[in-house]
Amino acid sequence: MRYQLLAQDGQARLGRLHFARGIVDTPAFMPVGTYGSVKGITPCELRDCGVQMLLCNALHLMLRPGTDHIASLGGLHRFMSWSGPLLSDSGGYQVFSLRHRCRLSEEGVLLHSPVDGAQLMLSPERAVAAQHALGVDVLMALDECTHQPGDQSASQAAMERSLRWALRCQEAHGNAPGALFGIVQGGIFPPLREKSLQGLGDNFAGYAIGGLAVGESAEQRLAVLDELVPRLPSDRPRYLMGLGKPLDLIEAVRRGVDMFDCVLPTRNARNGQLFTARGSLNLRNAIHRNSLSAPDPECSCYTCSHFSRAYLHHLLRRGELLGARLNTLHNVHYYQQLMHRLRNAIAVGELERCITECIAGWQRREATCTN
Amino acid sequence: MRYQLLAQDGQARLGRLHFARGIVDTPAFMPVGTYGSVKGITPCELRDCGVQMLLCNALHLMLRPGTDHIASLGGLHRFMSWSGPLLSDSGGYQVFSLRHRCRLSEEGVLLHSPVDGAQLMLSPERAVAAQHALGVDVLMALDECTHQPGDQSASQAAMERSLRWALRCQEAHGNAPGALFGIVQGGIFPPLREKSLQGLGDNFAGYAIGGLAVGESAEQRLAVLDELVPRLPSDRPRYLMGLGKPLDLIEAVRRGVDMFDCVLPTRNARNGQLFTARGSLNLRNAIHRNSLSAPDPECSCYTCSHFSRAYLHHLLRRGELLGARLNTLHNVHYYQQLMHRLRNAIAVGELERCITECIAGWQRREATCTN
Repeated sequence: MRYQLLAQDGQARLGRLHFARGIVDTPAFMPVGTYGSVKGITPCELRDCGVQMLLCNALHLMLRPGTDHIASLGGLHRFMSWSGPLLSDSGGYQVFSLRHRCRLSEEGVLLHSPVDGAQLMLSPERAVAAQHALGVDVLMALDECTHQPGDQSASQAAMERSLRWALRCQEAHGNAPGALFGIVQGGIFPPLREKSLQGLGDNFAGYAIGGLAVGESAEQRLAVLDELVPRLPSDRPRYLMGLGKPLDLIEAVRRGVDMFDCVLPTRNARNGQLFTARGSLNLRNAIHRNSLSAPDPECSCYTCSHFSRAYLHHLLRRGELLGARLNTLHNVHYYQQLMHRLRNAIAVGELERCITECIAGWQRREATCTN
Repeated sequence: MRYQLLAQDGQARLGRLHFARGIVDTPAFMPVGTYGSVKGITPCELRDCGVQMLLCNALHLMLRPGTDHIASLGGLHRFMSWSGPLLSDSGGYQVFSLRHRCRLSEEGVLLHSPVDGAQLMLSPERAVAAQHALGVDVLMALDECTHQPGDQSASQAAMERSLRWALRCQEAHGNAPGALFGIVQGGIFPPLREKSLQGLGDNFAGYAIGGLAVGESAEQRLAVLDELVPRLPSDRPRYLMGLGKPLDLIEAVRRGVDMFDCVLPTRNARNGQLFTARGSLNLRNAIHRNSLSAPDPECSCYTCSHFSRAYLHHLLRRGELLGARLNTLHNVHYYQQLMHRLRNAIAVGELERCITECIAGWQRREATCTN
């Protein structure tokens, strides 16, 4: 993998990730395909929406159907019929969200398989091996997240352990295929972030910002980005893990982040929340029952060009599969279009104007939500 | 609507239904879109599979979201974004399957709405009005089904009531847009079927065979078809309601039936049962866990050209939405291809050879189910 910086606008960067499997234009948003599918959406549709790279979860796939199983079937790309680049999360965040069911030690994370109750040791070495088995293009180091804002000593201990695990991942990865990204931890504490970054060194193919979206406020999160992003190696991609809402992406792009992933657009779509040029709307709301308007009148996706809010409202209320699917398709498309728009704006040095326009659009929501 | 008979092969008929909204080649299979969507599948995909006409359920839509509501939004075609012909079931079969929650009288069926518990009188006039509100191309008369093989007097009473209701439907329909089909009842009793047919007269746009697939054996069903189909008006389409498996369709096509609908291909797909050129297979079965084979190696649908049985097995086991969708797409495609093949065979007078080949293919299933 090679990162190419094409243009800058303030701190924001326009770039390209070159993989053997294709190019990813950055800033990029990766939809989440936890179990090797973006819920309800085909690889062809993802491509049509402009998606160039997907995220999957190594820990989930390790548990079911098993990463060795996927390897025996030719790897994850073939398994899910996605020929573009794939990034896998190592499981650090999943351990955080399941922390009451895990035991952490220096060796790794001991967890009970929800499949058969068997104990599984997710060590840094095991996390790398699982990602090798999947055959992904970008591997993530195993890290330890802590709830924020927590006390500094807990954040420090987790950061230092994450650092030792990252170096073990690097050792386990060696020169194997796939680009290994390190993850900067340290919670909301600038000195810890600084120490984490220094400890990782400059031998990772990319640098992720982990341990955000775990309870801290938006201000605290932006303060971390303000402080940290300018110090990340400028010749490597910068990946903010697990965020977020359209405004979160914009604020991070503005500060120089290149890559994103989040379940928000897909998960919320299944519950009827659509992100649009006029802000978000929830199609379950009775206000949409009689609306012949497209979900997003400014959107050109299949959903918006063929169906009314009234129909999607009906499908959601009936639990019809097509509803979840059409809503997801729209949100995936919306996120890709947003990134596309931000990239174009950076290219011509008009990011701030673009951001102002996006935000102004979202604030016009009330006018269309009632028609 | 106009029916055009193009060719015959034995009793089997090749024909065309001409609607203002398009042509339907017969024998035709209509996928079921109960609530105004074929579960998980878009109108474009249905078209791509060769679907020319869909069925929806007037009673379901009457209860939720309401047929007047759909009318106020421009009718069902616009609501669901399907520009081809639509046929609506009147609710007779739904009443049969919910008979413990309904009370039948000469006036109609009194049922309790599952939405708010309110009483609803589904009379012949109300059934026609609901279908007018939907704006469908083919309306079905309201009928009364009875369990088979039941006693002849119960079947006779239901048949006679269905007859009176059919004539009331005809009266209510008048010259309104849409083709009204009558439904021949009478269970497994030839004299009752004969009386039902005579009672309907020859003023219906098409003739359906109702009250099958309600408990009778396959032999009893075929005996009804053998007896009844040749007596149906030859210049009108013949529609066998609610069937069925691929072999059921073949046996009925052979006997001169033109139209079919059934939830089987779509409902069973969601549970992992695929219909293929080598018989049916259930993807939940552990035997498919390691199979790199396409679900149906002879099929050219999107599912079969992109995904392995192992992947579909995984999606099903995980309850991933994409699994239900891909399986449904295959089954819809398979049923359309089967009808296409039967039509081609009738055109060249080789239906029997075609049927022999289909059945021989299904019997080769074991060879591929284990790879």
